[in-house]
Amino acid sequence: MNKRDVDVAIVGAGTAGLAARREAKKAGARVLLIEGGPYGTTCARVGCMPSKLLIHSADVAHEIATAEKFGVEIQGKPKINGKAVLERVRRERDRFVGFVLDSVEDIPDEEKLKGHARFEGPGTLVVDDHTCVEARAIVVAAGSSPWIPSNLSGVGDRLLISDDVFEFEDLPGSAAVIGMGVIGLELGQSLHRLGVDTLCLTPSSRVGPLTDPVIKQKAIDVFGRELNLHVGIREMEARQVDGGVHLKWMDRDGSTREATVDYVLASAGRRPNLAGLDPERAEVPLDDHGQPLVDPRTAQIGNLPIFLAGDVSDHRPLLHEAADEGRIAGHNAARYPDVRAFVRRTLLSVVFSDPQIAVVGKAYGRLDPDSMTIGEVSYDDQGRSRVMGKNSGHVRIYAENERGTLLGAEMLGPSVEHTGHLLAWAVQQGLTVDGALRMPFYHPVVEEGIRTALRDLAAKLKLEETLEPGCMDCGPGT
Amino acid sequence: MNKRDVDVAIVGAGTAGLAARREAKKAGARVLLIEGGPYGTTCARVGCMPSKLLIHSADVAHEIATAEKFGVEIQGKPKINGKAVLERVRRERDRFVGFVLDSVEDIPDEEKLKGHARFEGPGTLVVDDHTCVEARAIVVAAGSSPWIPSNLSGVGDRLLISDDVFEFEDLPGSAAVIGMGVIGLELGQSLHRLGVDTLCLTPSSRVGPLTDPVIKQKAIDVFGRELNLHVGIREMEARQVDGGVHLKWMDRDGSTREATVDYVLASAGRRPNLAGLDPERAEVPLDDHGQPLVDPRTAQIGNLPIFLAGDVSDHRPLLHEAADEGRIAGHNAARYPDVRAFVRRTLLSVVFSDPQIAVVGKAYGRLDPDSMTIGEVSYDDQGRSRVMGKNSGHVRIYAENERGTLLGAEMLGPSVEHTGHLLAWAVQQGLTVDGALRMPFYHPVVEEGIRTALRDLAAKLKLEETLEPGCMDCGPGT
Repeated sequence: MNKRDVDVAIVGAGTAGLAARREAKKAGARVLLIEGGPYGTTCARVGCMPSKLLIHSADVAHEIATAEKFGVEIQGKPKINGKAVLERVRRERDRFVGFVLDSVEDIPDEEKLKGHARFEGPGTLVVDDHTCVEARAIVVAAGSSPWIPSNLSGVGDRLLISDDVFEFEDLPGSAAVIGMGVIGLELGQSLHRLGVDTLCLTPSSRVGPLTDPVIKQKAIDVFGRELNLHVGIREMEARQVDGGVHLKWMDRDGSTREATVDYVLASAGRRPNLAGLDPERAEVPLDDHGQPLVDPRTAQIGNLPIFLAGDVSDHRPLLHEAADEGRIAGHNAARYPDVRAFVRRTLLSVVFSDPQIAVVGKAYGRLDPDSMTIGEVSYDDQGRSRVMGKNSGHVRIYAENERGTLLGAEMLGPSVEHTGHLLAWAVQQGLTVDGALRMPFYHPVVEEGIRTALRDLAAKLKLEETLEPGCMDCGPGT
Repeated sequence: MNKRDVDVAIVGAGTAGLAARREAKKAGARVLLIEGGPYGTTCARVGCMPSKLLIHSADVAHEIATAEKFGVEIQGKPKINGKAVLERVRRERDRFVGFVLDSVEDIPDEEKLKGHARFEGPGTLVVDDHTCVEARAIVVAAGSSPWIPSNLSGVGDRLLISDDVFEFEDLPGSAAVIGMGVIGLELGQSLHRLGVDTLCLTPSSRVGPLTDPVIKQKAIDVFGRELNLHVGIREMEARQVDGGVHLKWMDRDGSTREATVDYVLASAGRRPNLAGLDPERAEVPLDDHGQPLVDPRTAQIGNLPIFLAGDVSDHRPLLHEAADEGRIAGHNAARYPDVRAFVRRTLLSVVFSDPQIAVVGKAYGRLDPDSMTIGEVSYDDQGRSRVMGKNSGHVRIYAENERGTLLGAEMLGPSVEHTGHLLAWAVQQGLTVDGALRMPFYHPVVEEGIRTALRDLAAKLKLEETLEPGCMDCGPGT
């Protein structure tokens, strides 16, 4: 077995691993990057990018299907060229992956190693059976994998995970999407809009990452009107039958339902790629869920020379957070034991469904109802949204009672990917309701809906009005 | 002649006048609202709302025309049902106008007066020839009107202003749009996308409200690729001919051009409705352009009991600014001579073209090149923009050299109506480049393009990097 001695060993060459490598190199560390799978990040290969490409084709199809109300007519129905849709997804996806591969290519051969790593001790990794790596510190950035519920074990080769969808040569005739989290909702709605007869099932009582009961219900109503959506299902059975999959389940109302589909897409969430690493050999302390106890401000596990970054940490499985965790882990691994804590960004989580979903700052479920006030707005009749035929949704903004400081928001509506940024930046800067109302809101824009919710908050908080909330008195005129 | 004696007389029942009325009423003043034209605001009747409705139909038509690259195919070409487009514009427009009319309807009859007002003295108005109004203070919120260049005088009834477009029963076969400011660009592109053979002419060297030479040139390039656009034209002659208008002009390169179109749309800007008010009788001090000297923080003209609000002030002819000016004018008119100054919002100006244009905070033309640094990004290959087939544009952000405080931006690109809000809020809060980079940027979003421009600024300003700009060290880890 070969032996390697380095300052920092990094397991995983994804977004977090590559960011960790850059930071560790900047600090002058001798770094080894270990990757067991294909190069290219989850984001570029099977996550953010291909899903957004598929969603855009679906949105275009939906625009065309609803074009007549805007005075634009077409002959017959739009034809979805599934092969062309998927070819574009892969072509553009491969371009994004290409950028990642180029950056991996630029790493000198002696600084990277192919193979599956597992711990032998806190500072020792064995890679496949060919190399033993001793490192002063180790960054684990091993990513996550789709989780397959056990009741889908009888589906055989008709069972897909999200990765597989992008590899289809053509779109299937029908599919059941199991799980309506971020990925399930995005893919379920896209497939439906692309003409796939799509069944959307989830044992959960919610869709997406929502926790606010009002927004949760609104989302179920809105998506339920468009999709064949069943939430809160129980006792699902799935078995492969000739040319497809037969599904049987109990709906929330107790009725038994059945359906046969070409494929089942499991989108029941992703799980950190930890088990194969033998973390117990490194004496990694685990919580009740088998997750390492990691400080998100340092990325460090306990006092060990081991740092966790990206989806494997299960902290915030989002691209931009993985990049931050990678940077923090790389910075601290290179300087171990001189570990520093970093301020994390305000949470921002977006689902690219239509209407979109966003969770900003502290979600409803993490707030104390007694110390906060809720301002809200419906987008069902909001001016600009109506102009665009996108008038559907509801937003609730949370502020603390004392000074009206903005805490967070749960959002369902048009372009909340953008208004979500606006609110996340406001929350991170400690802006108050009154302060936010002093900012410019153009006309006619969806941001005016956010102003309506802020004014609702101002009224409920009984903020003192000088002129109106939003105008700031600066003293006597000349 | 009738006589009326009130605390505050308001000339104009548009956005600014109605806002002024509410504030003056809140302060307990006896108010009279005088309107010479139809009720309903410029915004709702002929401005923001109908233009956005027309633009949305045009965008839908454009989406369909470019759908094939996303794998969505239609038979033949999309058919623009011009009558249906314009019927929707008017139907939805009338709904927005209806809300305004309802609010006017709610005003007691004795508090409003129909007729054209003109000054007799600083506190005296004569309305038509039927009423003389004495007021302790007067708010002038008389709005603005399209300006018609003199070289269009030979066009006769083939000459249109933007208001007329929304009253068409069907779309014309061809049109020339003269002037490529905000309204000209929005309408010119919409008509083109709705199948009208559209000629876009402007004597100016720019399109929209841009002042940054890089963004100006980019805009001319981008819109020039799609539209039949001629900037910097000279010596235009226009005369009505059988069934249309014949135009002759000299292009920037000196060549003479000719064209015949069905209609000419004059969009050479709007002018404040001042002349008919006889402001000289109120001893209103005027600047070199014949505009009253008004303090935007108080809305007051000199030390007179006269306040100017909305488009008539020519300060910032934007809906949200008109509402602010109305509130300030109403507040101060009711309390005159106890006049207070209010902080105005950071400038935000948006053109709803495709790509969109935004000017935020201090425009390039208002900055001292020696004390500021420019960060920039091209949207021609930006990730998410490319996914949506909207990868076209360029953004430049300005920061002062000492602390990297954000000053403003000029923007051409997808969804800059949203990223413009993000930057305008950041500018108003005095955020620095480093502070902005600490905020969350989701993935994949157009906001990441803004981050690229901020990182460019950070590099040029040689900001000290702890981890990387955007991560904030909060001290030793545990």
